[in-house]
Amino acid sequence: MRVKIERIQQNLENLACFGKLEGGGVSRLAFTREDQEARVYLEKALESEGLTVKVDAFGNMRARRQGKENLAPVMIGSHLDSVPQGGRFDGTVGVVAALEVIRVLNELKVETRRPVELINFAVEESGRFGVGTLGSKAMCGHLSVEKLKSYRDNRGVSLYEALKNFGLNPEALDTVRINPGEIYAFIETHIEQGRVLEAENIPIGIVTAIAAPTRLKVLVKGRADHSGATPMSLREDALTAASEIILGVEKIAASEAGPHTVGTVGYVRVSPGAMNVIPGLVEMGIDLRDIEKDSKDLAVTKVLALLKRVSQKRHVGIEYEILANEPPVALSPKMVGSLEKAARSLGYSYKLMPSGAGHDAMYMAELTQVGMIFIPSKEGISHNPAEYSSWEEIARGAELLLETVINLANETNQ
Amino acid sequence: MRVKIERIQQNLENLACFGKLEGGGVSRLAFTREDQEARVYLEKALESEGLTVKVDAFGNMRARRQGKENLAPVMIGSHLDSVPQGGRFDGTVGVVAALEVIRVLNELKVETRRPVELINFAVEESGRFGVGTLGSKAMCGHLSVEKLKSYRDNRGVSLYEALKNFGLNPEALDTVRINPGEIYAFIETHIEQGRVLEAENIPIGIVTAIAAPTRLKVLVKGRADHSGATPMSLREDALTAASEIILGVEKIAASEAGPHTVGTVGYVRVSPGAMNVIPGLVEMGIDLRDIEKDSKDLAVTKVLALLKRVSQKRHVGIEYEILANEPPVALSPKMVGSLEKAARSLGYSYKLMPSGAGHDAMYMAELTQVGMIFIPSKEGISHNPAEYSSWEEIARGAELLLETVINLANETNQ
Repeated sequence: MRVKIERIQQNLENLACFGKLEGGGVSRLAFTREDQEARVYLEKALESEGLTVKVDAFGNMRARRQGKENLAPVMIGSHLDSVPQGGRFDGTVGVVAALEVIRVLNELKVETRRPVELINFAVEESGRFGVGTLGSKAMCGHLSVEKLKSYRDNRGVSLYEALKNFGLNPEALDTVRINPGEIYAFIETHIEQGRVLEAENIPIGIVTAIAAPTRLKVLVKGRADHSGATPMSLREDALTAASEIILGVEKIAASEAGPHTVGTVGYVRVSPGAMNVIPGLVEMGIDLRDIEKDSKDLAVTKVLALLKRVSQKRHVGIEYEILANEPPVALSPKMVGSLEKAARSLGYSYKLMPSGAGHDAMYMAELTQVGMIFIPSKEGISHNPAEYSSWEEIARGAELLLETVINLANETNQ
Repeated sequence: MRVKIERIQQNLENLACFGKLEGGGVSRLAFTREDQEARVYLEKALESEGLTVKVDAFGNMRARRQGKENLAPVMIGSHLDSVPQGGRFDGTVGVVAALEVIRVLNELKVETRRPVELINFAVEESGRFGVGTLGSKAMCGHLSVEKLKSYRDNRGVSLYEALKNFGLNPEALDTVRINPGEIYAFIETHIEQGRVLEAENIPIGIVTAIAAPTRLKVLVKGRADHSGATPMSLREDALTAASEIILGVEKIAASEAGPHTVGTVGYVRVSPGAMNVIPGLVEMGIDLRDIEKDSKDLAVTKVLALLKRVSQKRHVGIEYEILANEPPVALSPKMVGSLEKAARSLGYSYKLMPSGAGHDAMYMAELTQVGMIFIPSKEGISHNPAEYSSWEEIARGAELLLETVINLANETNQ
């Protein structure tokens, strides 16, 4: 390997100091002091490699290693912010891998035709403002000054204020936008956040598509009656109805939609919620994801039919609200091919797989050809101090990133 | 009818003033000022009928109308305390019906062989101290001074202290005990707290047995994973497992145990409980009731087998704790017969039915032959300000009580 495991480890350990939690993990919310410390660390590391960091009006950090020709750059990176009580690897792995690629290119004095640019996206996590992947959304022009003012953290500070307090200029949001063609390709390295690679003992995932969620809030309205005095035949139990929906969502996702469909009921709130009262009201959230739009649409259709069926069968009222319904994003087949080719040339086994979680790569795909490399996550744990990937696994991902970047940065046309 | 609807209405409306809530209903917790006011009202009403009220060391109020012979009395009554935010009918209906019986007996100068005794049980509701039917438990000798000290309200006041503050003598608890034979029969009149009588349009329920609950706290332990990044096949979802249990409990109660079995999951707590996280832990409560011990035991056995089956099938850990497992109480067939005979002689249609809710009658059955009369509850609502039974329905129940009391009080032997 050309990348250095020790250097990767050192950078990850150093970055884990910013927002470090007792007993491991980090809390490094966007635009906090901890975030600032991590950004300064990254800036110094890039400067010591001879790169200049530019920060756009939204706080995205970009640093360019020049190429031999004046072509659009190959961009690599991820994000340094974390969820509250998060892990050391989510996001940071992708930034550290990109930094390592820059270092190896310098160390080996590799000259590429195209520039190679590192990016640290601002506000990838929704942990502070309730919405995430904002840096890439800003680059796509999906944000407005009004939205910046409307997103608030749990202390009531708006994103607009947070940007100003961070020394940025939210009024210049338009200058953040990227035109198609300005970036030749983007590759994000990220921990898997799932257990597929670990379960199959494969060191590398090459992402083919990113699943976006459709989210429903469902209210089941039965009637609260005395648990002892109401015979089974006279009940309108909101929780048994909800249970039928929960199992129905599982069945639809597992076997009635597409091969990659996932469906989850993650929360349930029962009223009145007492041992001796039949539940009169249940609220629950349904999260459906797929990398194929048709499969997800089919799953949504089937879930809506399920709600109707359960309502009629059990004589309970069922209302729903669609909170989100984003289309899945297929990544560039050409980039998947480039990553596969590089993996084969390095002798790494890999798995083509979907990403169930959202990433900045999803929005970058509106601007350029995008690829993603997944590193195995121990037990699939993420957004948790117990998050873990081994230094070796991360280094292998960085090596694949390096190989792919060298290839892409020497391409002259698509 | 010999009983007077207006008098019953007046008494219920007057008693509803003690602890009256804005918008209807009462909060009249045991041994509070409101409870005291209601007790004083009852005492005055009984005194104006020439009866003397005796209060035992636990606060149970008893007033005897003498009979012609020195025989054990026929006891009638219920309770005046309520749950927080309760209704005007639960308990109070039984006390007012008993008071009306005394009045009619006086009014019509009916002489009975046996004395007729009215009782207002202390602390029937669990709303203040977390446990209920304490007055009858004390009469059965099921309480100890230690227990009185251990039961506390939400301000930390123990039942022991509350008794003392109420001018009672908790140290004399033993004097509250009743010996078998001291009471000839007990009849409690109560609102149904269910919808069976209303649904079948029958004005009177004659209770054949009181179902006691078996209660289980169940913990389902799966693993919390990312809802997007975890394929359906790799999940250990605690909530889908819990849903299978919830539907299984319903099926067992509805069709696999006895004809009167009811089973309810009244609360569910999901952790971490977020839209995008597969539930890792679910706690829930199962409440199983039946009037037949064998049927309830069968239901419990089947539920425990269900827990094991779901645990194995879904690879989740399932732990349970049996919080309560009380045997159901069959009421005296002779008393059921007496009530049926009286109902027929009055031309009232009636339904023989179980009581799903617990009552002081349950413990009184340890001491004497016990009967219960149910009054229809509008929409089955109870423990709620919306609790309602019509004056006519209550009067009909009181008339049945009167007829039965006259019959029983003239019996000389069992």
